[in-house]
Amino acid sequence: MADLTHGLSTAELTELTNRSIAAKETAYCPYSKFRVGCAILCNDGTWITGGNVENASYPVGICAERTALVKAISEGKRGFRALGVATDVKPPSSPCGMCRQFIREFADLNMPIFMYDIDGGYEVMTLGQLLPMSFGPDSLPPPSEMAKLSKE
Amino acid sequence: MADLTHGLSTAELTELTNRSIAAKETAYCPYSKFRVGCAILCNDGTWITGGNVENASYPVGICAERTALVKAISEGKRGFRALGVATDVKPPSSPCGMCRQFIREFADLNMPIFMYDIDGGYEVMTLGQLLPMSFGPDSLPPPSEMAKLSKE
Amino acid sequence: MADLTHGLSTAELTELTNRSIAAKETAYCPYSKFRVGCAILCNDGTWITGGNVENASYPVGICAERTALVKAISEGKRGFRALGVATDVKPPSSPCGMCRQFIREFADLNMPIFMYDIDGGYEVMTLGQLLPMSFGPDSLPPPSEMAKLSKE
Amino acid sequence: MADLTHGLSTAELTELTNRSIAAKETAYCPYSKFRVGCAILCNDGTWITGGNVENASYPVGICAERTALVKAISEGKRGFRALGVATDVKPPSSPCGMCRQFIREFADLNMPIFMYDIDGGYEVMTLGQLLPMSFGPDSLPPPSEMAKLSKE
Repeated sequence: MADLTHGLSTAELTELTNRSIAAKETAYCPYSKFRVGCAILCNDGTWITGGNVENASYPVGICAERTALVKAISEGKRGFRALGVATDVKPPSSPCGMCRQFIREFADLNMPIFMYDIDGGYEVMTLGQLLPMSFGPDSLPPPSEMAKLSKE
Repeated sequence: MADLTHGLSTAELTELTNRSIAAKETAYCPYSKFRVGCAILCNDGTWITGGNVENASYPVGICAERTALVKAISEGKRGFRALGVATDVKPPSSPCGMCRQFIREFADLNMPIFMYDIDGGYEVMTLGQLLPMSFGPDSLPPPSEMAKLSKE
Repeated sequence: MADLTHGLSTAELTELTNRSIAAKETAYCPYSKFRVGCAILCNDGTWITGGNVENASYPVGICAERTALVKAISEGKRGFRALGVATDVKPPSSPCGMCRQFIREFADLNMPIFMYDIDGGYEVMTLGQLLPMSFGPDSLPPPSEMAKLSKE
Repeated sequence: MADLTHGLSTAELTELTNRSIAAKETAYCPYSKFRVGCAILCNDGTWITGGNVENASYPVGICAERTALVKAISEGKRGFRALGVATDVKPPSSPCGMCRQFIREFADLNMPIFMYDIDGGYEVMTLGQLLPMSFGPDSLPPPSEMAKLSKE
C-alpha cells in the first residue's frame, strides 16, 4: 500500500494543509481570480509560503509554487521535504509545467507534492511522477562543451 | 509491444527526424550554445519547424518547442500528429516543463513527442506521459466563476 | 518636426497598418479576450506577422510581438525596419516590458514601433525610447569572465 | 538640479546600497555566473531582498528584481519607496524589460530605481523613465468588455 503521507508526520501534514490553504489569501490575481496558495516544508524544519502574483501582461506573472520556492532559495534554503498547493476548485489543480520545471532545479525527484482541492481533500504525487524524464541541471553541459558538440 | 512509431509511416518518421535535426541550424543560442531544433507534423500534413531563441535576460528567451508551436498556432494550424525535438547531447533531452505546458494547450495527450540525441537515436513518449495530471484549459474556470468560489 | 513615418514609404506604412490589424485575427486569447496583432517589416522586404497565444497557466503564454519576432528569427531573418502592434483598445497599447526586452536582442534602438488603436490611429516610438538604458547582449559578459568578477 | 536621492535620507540610501550589494550573495546563477542582488524599501519602512534564481531551462529562471518583489507582494507589502539592483559589472546593469513590467504592476511611475555597479557607484532612474508609455493594469479592460470590443 502506498504511503500517502510520504514520511510526513500527522502534525506536519496537517500544517502543510493549513499553510497551503491559508497562503491563498496572499494571492494577487485580479485577472484570473484563480487563487493559488503554496507551502513548502524545508529540510531544516522551517516553512515558506506564497501565492500567485499576476500581471497585466499575463506572461509576466509568477505562479504560487514559484513564488514560494524562489523565496526559499533566496533565503538560503536548500533541501525540501514537501510542497503543498491549494486552489479553490475540485478536483485539485496540479502545478503547471513551468512550476514543475522550476521545482526540478532544487528538489529531489521523490519529493511529494500535495494538491489540495477547495474542500481540503488532496491528491499527492512525487515530483518525478509529475515531471518524468525531466530536463534538469545535469542535462545541460556548460557552454564551452556545447560549442564543441554543435560543431561536430 | 509498444508501437514506437505512434501511427506515423516510415516516411513520416524519417521526415520528422530529419526536420527536427535540421531545425537546430535555426537556433539562436549565444549564451548556452545548446542548440535545439523542433519539427511539428500538423494534422493537415504540413510541417512547422523552429529553434530556440535566447535572450541576454535569460528568462525572456523562447525554447525551440514553443517557437515551432507558436508559429503553427499563429498560422492557423490546429491538431497535431507528432512533435520532434533534437539536441546535440546523448541521451536525448526532453522538452522542459514550460514547453510541455505550452504544448498541452493545443495537443492531445496521446500525441507522441520524439526526442532525438546527437546521433539521431530517439526516445518517444506521449504528451500525457511527459505531463501527467496536467493543468489545462479545462482546469481553469472563467474569472466570473472563480470570483464566486474564492468567496465561499 | 518629427518624422512620424521613420523612413517608411506611404505604401509601406499602409501595409504595416493593415497587416498589424489583420494579424489580430490569428490571436488565441480565450482568457483575456484581448486580441493583439503584430507585423514586422524585415530588411529584406519580407513581412512576418503573429498574434498573442495564451495558456491556461497565464505565465506560459506568448505575446503577439514575441510570436512574430520569434517566427522571423527562426526563419533566418536578421535586421528589421519596423514593427507594428494592433489591439482593440484606444488609446493604443504598447508592447509589454518582456516584449521590449525580446525585441531588444535583435533590433536597432532606432527601429520604430507603431502602436495602432482600434480605429487604426497610431502612436510611434523607437525601441530605444520604449526601453531606455536597456540590458542587451553587450551588457552580459560570458560566464567565464563573470566567474572571475564575482570573486573579486 | 536633479535630486539624485529621490527623497531618501542619507541613511536610507546607504542601507539601500548595502542591502542591494549584499543580496548578490543570495543569487543562484550557475549558468550565467551573473550575480544580481535586489533590495526594496517598502512604504512601511521594512526591507525585502532577493537574488536571481536561474534554471537549466533558461526561460524558467527568475531575475533578482522579481524575486525580491514577489516576496514583498506575497508578504502583503504594498507601496514601495525605492528599489536597488546591484551587479558585478560596470557601468551598472539596468532591470531587464520583463522585470520593469513586473515592477510596473505594483510601483508608482516615480519610484526611483538605483542601479549599482561593481564599485558601488550608481545611476538612478524612475520606473516611468525606464518603462515609458507602459502597459499596466489600467491598459487591460476585463475579458467581458474585450469580448465585445473584438467583435465590433
